[in-house]
Amino acid sequence: MTTTTMPMLDTYPRDINLDRQKLATAIDTLIACNQACTACADACLSESMVAELTKCIRTNLDCADICATTARVLSRHTGYDATISRSLLEACAAACKSCGDECETHAGMHEHCRICADACRTCEQACRDLLAEMS
Amino acid sequence: MTTTTMPMLDTYPRDINLDRQKLATAIDTLIACNQACTACADACLSESMVAELTKCIRTNLDCADICATTARVLSRHTGYDATISRSLLEACAAACKSCGDECETHAGMHEHCRICADACRTCEQACRDLLAEMS
Amino acid sequence: MTTTTMPMLDTYPRDINLDRQKLATAIDTLIACNQACTACADACLSESMVAELTKCIRTNLDCADICATTARVLSRHTGYDATISRSLLEACAAACKSCGDECETHAGMHEHCRICADACRTCEQACRDLLAEMS
Amino acid sequence: MTTTTMPMLDTYPRDINLDRQKLATAIDTLIACNQACTACADACLSESMVAELTKCIRTNLDCADICATTARVLSRHTGYDATISRSLLEACAAACKSCGDECETHAGMHEHCRICADACRTCEQACRDLLAEMS
Repeated sequence: MTTTTMPMLDTYPRDINLDRQKLATAIDTLIACNQACTACADACLSESMVAELTKCIRTNLDCADICATTARVLSRHTGYDATISRSLLEACAAACKSCGDECETHAGMHEHCRICADACRTCEQACRDLLAEMS
Repeated sequence: MTTTTMPMLDTYPRDINLDRQKLATAIDTLIACNQACTACADACLSESMVAELTKCIRTNLDCADICATTARVLSRHTGYDATISRSLLEACAAACKSCGDECETHAGMHEHCRICADACRTCEQACRDLLAEMS
Repeated sequence: MTTTTMPMLDTYPRDINLDRQKLATAIDTLIACNQACTACADACLSESMVAELTKCIRTNLDCADICATTARVLSRHTGYDATISRSLLEACAAACKSCGDECETHAGMHEHCRICADACRTCEQACRDLLAEMS
Repeated sequence: MTTTTMPMLDTYPRDINLDRQKLATAIDTLIACNQACTACADACLSESMVAELTKCIRTNLDCADICATTARVLSRHTGYDATISRSLLEACAAACKSCGDECETHAGMHEHCRICADACRTCEQACRDLLAEMS
């Protein structure tokens, strides 16, 4: 997949307070995690043992929404407000941790949960890396 | 406007760990703030002095996205995870504070900013009230 | 609930091509339907017979996303493009019809599905009323 | 960027009515277009000539929201409803066409508009290809 995240950062007409490569990595990782969580929720819904996967579905839905919003906030640089970015990245890392933990429980049984757990772990790390960059 | 937020909470088939009335108030307030911020961003775009309102537009867009996501997370109760709700409410209160502060700067000149600043203040308070309820 | 949808429309600094009262009604109805569908998906997830409600959950999630996006598009008036609004309203009416039909199937058994079916019917009608206004 | 869109499709536990490769391409293209439009809106906000870019910003915001929602709907396969997918793809193609046309107007002057116009053209085509596959 060819994203234009990095080219779009490179054509932003003013300064950006953060390392552009780390920012692009975080945005692309958040976008991928949103998709993985949305797809995992739906795959869980279609498993015959769906009744045992309801917490997984719910956490997937939360994590998808939070990753989508965090990707958008990080894609904006005009009138940058570190307080919003930082607190949202903290919330997103927490959601990715919860979702990664939950999906991991089913990773041995459902391949979609294994892939999604990996996406959540990678995304949690990307959030924490960017937070470290910010402080 | 008739929302079904409270009736939907009343028909949820299991326990909810929070006071349902406070939860309904928070959800409805978040939903209203999402709309006010989306509309304020667009109204600012149509002002002749738009060049002086770019920070306001950006903060409106962030606040709208974060309120929308927070309203969704609070509308789910299956497999409740206090860590996610709490960290997201903190982020949302921070976004509402930033957006309320920014809109207030233009409140004397633009009535949409005055209304939006009020919506942000009310929403920040609703987030903090729910956070107090949770601890 | 006090929304500021109508006051925000009234303070928009330029002309709006549509009847403001009908527009406000449509936006508020879309917002309420997004919330009802999000909550109904979650309530279905917590029913013991969740395995029989998976299509309902999926349609709820689609309808919630489409209503949320339609509410945002209708909340913007700068550089109005009737083609986008019209095609999105068509898609939204279709989603509300599908979701209303599906929820109605379970309305006798699950009160949340009955309330959500009503919200979808009302929203489908509001979309069609606005479409009629546009042509 | 490594997305897991295709691996997630491959691990979905039931049948999918569409060609999985074309579906993955459409989803990834929609996701990329959402990001490009979000970033282009913000880059336009930071241009000194922002007053001449307000229609571009508005169309970017609409296109971003519609692409994000379409990507989610296409990521779900449980209880597939062709009516929703088809009408939403039509709306999304219309939004991508409008946004591509608008961004193209500024492509000679603003590189972010040129990149975004390309992303919109590619996305419009992916929507139309999937629509052709569906009928």
